[in-house]
Amino acid sequence: MTLRHFTHIRDLGPEGVERILSRAAAWKGSFPKHLVDRVLAMVFFNPSLRTRASFETVMIRGGGSAVVLEVGNGVWKLEDRLGAVMDGDRAEHVREAVPVLARYADALAVRTFATCADDAADHADPVIGAFRQYSTVPVISMESAREHPCQGLADLLTARELFGPTRGLPVTLAWAPHIKPLPKAVPNSFLLTAAAAGCEVRVAHPEGFELMPEVLAEARGYAQAAGGSVSVTHDLDSALAGSRVLYAKSWGPATAGGPGPEAVKAHPEWLTSTAHLARMAPDAIFEHCLPVRRNVEVSDAVLDSPQCRVVDEAENRFHVQRALLDLLIGNGS
Amino acid sequence: MTLRHFTHIRDLGPEGVERILSRAAAWKGSFPKHLVDRVLAMVFFNPSLRTRASFETVMIRGGGSAVVLEVGNGVWKLEDRLGAVMDGDRAEHVREAVPVLARYADALAVRTFATCADDAADHADPVIGAFRQYSTVPVISMESAREHPCQGLADLLTARELFGPTRGLPVTLAWAPHIKPLPKAVPNSFLLTAAAAGCEVRVAHPEGFELMPEVLAEARGYAQAAGGSVSVTHDLDSALAGSRVLYAKSWGPATAGGPGPEAVKAHPEWLTSTAHLARMAPDAIFEHCLPVRRNVEVSDAVLDSPQCRVVDEAENRFHVQRALLDLLIGNGS
Amino acid sequence: MTLRHFTHIRDLGPEGVERILSRAAAWKGSFPKHLVDRVLAMVFFNPSLRTRASFETVMIRGGGSAVVLEVGNGVWKLEDRLGAVMDGDRAEHVREAVPVLARYADALAVRTFATCADDAADHADPVIGAFRQYSTVPVISMESAREHPCQGLADLLTARELFGPTRGLPVTLAWAPHIKPLPKAVPNSFLLTAAAAGCEVRVAHPEGFELMPEVLAEARGYAQAAGGSVSVTHDLDSALAGSRVLYAKSWGPATAGGPGPEAVKAHPEWLTSTAHLARMAPDAIFEHCLPVRRNVEVSDAVLDSPQCRVVDEAENRFHVQRALLDLLIGNGS
Repeated sequence: MTLRHFTHIRDLGPEGVERILSRAAAWKGSFPKHLVDRVLAMVFFNPSLRTRASFETVMIRGGGSAVVLEVGNGVWKLEDRLGAVMDGDRAEHVREAVPVLARYADALAVRTFATCADDAADHADPVIGAFRQYSTVPVISMESAREHPCQGLADLLTARELFGPTRGLPVTLAWAPHIKPLPKAVPNSFLLTAAAAGCEVRVAHPEGFELMPEVLAEARGYAQAAGGSVSVTHDLDSALAGSRVLYAKSWGPATAGGPGPEAVKAHPEWLTSTAHLARMAPDAIFEHCLPVRRNVEVSDAVLDSPQCRVVDEAENRFHVQRALLDLLIGNGS
Repeated sequence: MTLRHFTHIRDLGPEGVERILSRAAAWKGSFPKHLVDRVLAMVFFNPSLRTRASFETVMIRGGGSAVVLEVGNGVWKLEDRLGAVMDGDRAEHVREAVPVLARYADALAVRTFATCADDAADHADPVIGAFRQYSTVPVISMESAREHPCQGLADLLTARELFGPTRGLPVTLAWAPHIKPLPKAVPNSFLLTAAAAGCEVRVAHPEGFELMPEVLAEARGYAQAAGGSVSVTHDLDSALAGSRVLYAKSWGPATAGGPGPEAVKAHPEWLTSTAHLARMAPDAIFEHCLPVRRNVEVSDAVLDSPQCRVVDEAENRFHVQRALLDLLIGNGS
Repeated sequence: MTLRHFTHIRDLGPEGVERILSRAAAWKGSFPKHLVDRVLAMVFFNPSLRTRASFETVMIRGGGSAVVLEVGNGVWKLEDRLGAVMDGDRAEHVREAVPVLARYADALAVRTFATCADDAADHADPVIGAFRQYSTVPVISMESAREHPCQGLADLLTARELFGPTRGLPVTLAWAPHIKPLPKAVPNSFLLTAAAAGCEVRVAHPEGFELMPEVLAEARGYAQAAGGSVSVTHDLDSALAGSRVLYAKSWGPATAGGPGPEAVKAHPEWLTSTAHLARMAPDAIFEHCLPVRRNVEVSDAVLDSPQCRVVDEAENRFHVQRALLDLLIGNGS
C-alpha cells in the first residue's frame, strides 16, 4: 500500500483503515527503529497536548526526530489565500513556507482548526489543501478544518481492541454541550472512520447541530462498502439503546439558518451522565478525544468510571500515527 | 536506593541527599549514555531558562530525548481542582492530561510556581501532588509551590566541591529586596537541603518575611539527624559573621497579618553588597539560583567578584539532575 | 581554518567566504554524521521559520541535537546593558544567562533583531557582542541588528550554483516597499557577502534609504580584495540593466534627517514586477531572504516565475550552516 499524503479518511478508504488498525495493533509493545534519520516538521496553527506529545514520541521512539513550529508564536503568521495583497499581520505565504519546510524535513505534519463560522469553508479545508499542493514531501494532518483523521483511527482501534471485529458494532456519536462552538473535525472523523470500519453508526444531536451533508454522504458510502450503516436522530435515548460505544463530543451549530453560537450552552440533558451509560450494552465503553470539560460536556462520574477509555484512546494516537508514519516515511517504505 | 518520584527533599531524606551529591560529583567530566531510549516529557506552567536547558541536555547527553510542553502557550490550560465545573479558560483537567502523558513518556517533569498569596496553599502543593497521584511513571519537580529541590541539591553540590564535607559548615540564607513578591520554593529548598547535608544554617530576613513553619520544622528534623542546626534571625550582620556561603534570595512576605506585597521593595540594606561579603570567612562564596536582578537584589560588584559561584551552581543543576534521572529512569535502574 | 565565533562576515573575510561556499557545495547530497554528541542552544529574541528549522535539522541530520529557547516566551526577558538597575521587565542579565548556557551546550546560536530606530546602535550590535564576550563556547548569529550572515552566504551559494565563479558577476540589491520599517541586517549581509565573493554589486534604493556608511565601507574593502565593486544609485533601471541576480528587500529609512517610517509605504514603482526582470540578463534570477509579502514587496508573477529561486536559497541556509557548524563544533574540528 502506498500513501502520498494522509490528511483525510478518503486517503485510506475502508481497506486502508483496516490495514492501519491491524498494523497499529500488531506493533503494540514493540519499539522498532523504523524512522531512523527521518525528520518530521510539525506546524501548529492551534494548541495541542496529545497530538504534539504523541507525534514527537512516535518520531523519537522510531529513531527519528521532530521539529516543532508554532505559527504566530515564534513563527511568522501564514497567509493561504491566492492573490492576496499581504499588507496585514500575515508575514509569509504558504506558497513559500511549505516548499521551504519540505526542503528541510522528510514529512510535514499540520494542525489548522476550523473557523467554526462557515461549514462550507471548513469542508473545503483550504490550509491543509495548500500544504498538500505545495509540499514535495508527505503531509500528515494533525487536525484540519474538516477532519482529525488520526483521532478517528485511534478511536476505532480502542473499540476494536475490546470488541474485536467492528463490522456491525453499534456505536453512538452524541453531541454534548460546551461553553463555545467547537469544530466538527473530531465528530466527522469518528463518523467517517467508524463507517469505514463497518460499524452501525448512530449520530445523535439536538436540532440545529447537523453535521456537514458532504461528510454524511461520504460516511454512508463507506458504510455501504464495509457492511455497516449510518443513522441520524435527535433522540439520544434510542441512539444509546444497546450501543457498545458512546462517543461524546461537542460541536458548533450548523451555520445556515439554525441556532446561534449561544445554543451550545443549552441542552443540559445532553451532558453525558451515568444515566446515559445505563441505557447501553452492559460492556459498553465511553470515548472522548480530549481535552474534555468535566461537568460541562461529561460528568465526573462517567470520566472516573471503569467504562471510560479516554486514556487508552489517547495512547492509541501513538500507535496509529506510528503505523501511518511508517507507511509515509518509514525506513522500509 | 529506589526512588518512585522526586518532588520534595523528603523523597530523599538526609541519606538520599548524600547519595545524589556523591553520584553527581563522581560523574563530573564523564558522559555515560545511561538514558538511551528514554523520553522525558517536561510540562511548564511557568517560564524557565536553566531548568529547561539543563533537563533537556541531561536527556540528550545521556542518549535520550525530551519533549517540552508549555501550559497555556501552545498547550491547553490545565485545571487541577477536583469536582470543578470546567466552564472557564482551563480546557483540560490534570486527571486526563497526566495519565495521557504518562502513556507517551518514561517520566514527567513539572514546573508550577507558587501563588505567593497563600502560604498554606503553597505548602500543600496541589498541582505537583496531582501529578504524583495520576502519573503511572516517575514525576520530577522542576520547581513547585513549596520547593525547588533540584536547585537545593545544586546549591549544596557547589558548596561541597569547594569546602568538602558540609557537616557543620556555616551557611547563610539571606533575604533580598525585589520589585515584586516571589515564591518561597528556592529558599525552602536551600534550607531543607543544607539542613539535610548537616550545615549550620543561618536564616536571616526582615520581620514579616518568615518562612513557612512546616518547612522550618522539617529542616530542624533533618539538621538533628545530620548533625547540623537551623537558626533564624533578623540580624543579618550576625548571620554573616564567619559564614562560608551567602545564599541571597528574595521572597514574598508571610501572608498572615504581616507586611503587604509592597514591602519587598523596602529594606535596601538587604541588597547584597561587597560589605556583606567582607563580614564572612575569607574563603566565603556567594550563591544565587538565578535569574538575579542586578543592583536590585545583588550588586554588580558581588556578582562580578571571584567569590561569586552562580554559574558553577547553574552547571551543577545538570549534574544533580543527571544523577536523579539515572535513579528514576536510567538504563541500569 | 579556525573560527572562534561566527556572527559577522568579517569573521570569515573573502577567503573564509570562499571556503564556506565550497564546502557547502561539496557536501550537497551527502549527510555525514559530523555533529555527533554536539548540542546547539538556540536563543531567539525574535520569530523565525527557516532559521529555526534549518539550524535544527543541521544539528539533527549531523547526529547532534538542538535546544530552542525563546526569550520572553517561556524564557525570562534578558537585559544586556552594563550597570543596569534591573527593576523593569527584564528578569535576567546576559552576563549570567550566556555563561550558564555555555555550560550546557557546545555552541550558542542567537537571533536578535535591529531596533530599526537607531542605525548607530544597530551597527554596534550590542546583544550579539555580549554573547561573544560572555560565552565560553562558539557563538553563531541567526541574525543580529547589523547582519544576517548565514543568509548572505546562502544567497551567494545560490548564485554560484547557477553561474559558477562569482568574480565580476553583476548583482543588484534593490530596495522594496513594505508596511513597516524593517532591519538592514539582510541587505547588509547580501552586500558584504557579494562584495567578499567578488561580485559587481549594484545597490539601488530611493533617496533617504541609505545603508550604513560603515557597512558600505567594509563592503568596498572586500570588493577591492576580491576583484569586485560596489556602486550605489537611486536609478533602479540602470542598476538592473544586464544584471544576473535581483535581490529585492525592504529596509527602513536611514534615521538621521531623512524620511520618517511611513516612507516605506511609498515608492510603488519599487515593488518588484516582471518588468524589472525584463531589464536584466536573459538568465537572470530573483532572490529574496523570505518571508516575503506578496504584492507588497514583490508581485505574484515574479515569485511564481521559473526565475524565482527563493526556495533554493532557503534550502541553501541548511548547507552553509552545516559547513559553519562543522568548522565551529564538528567532530573533526
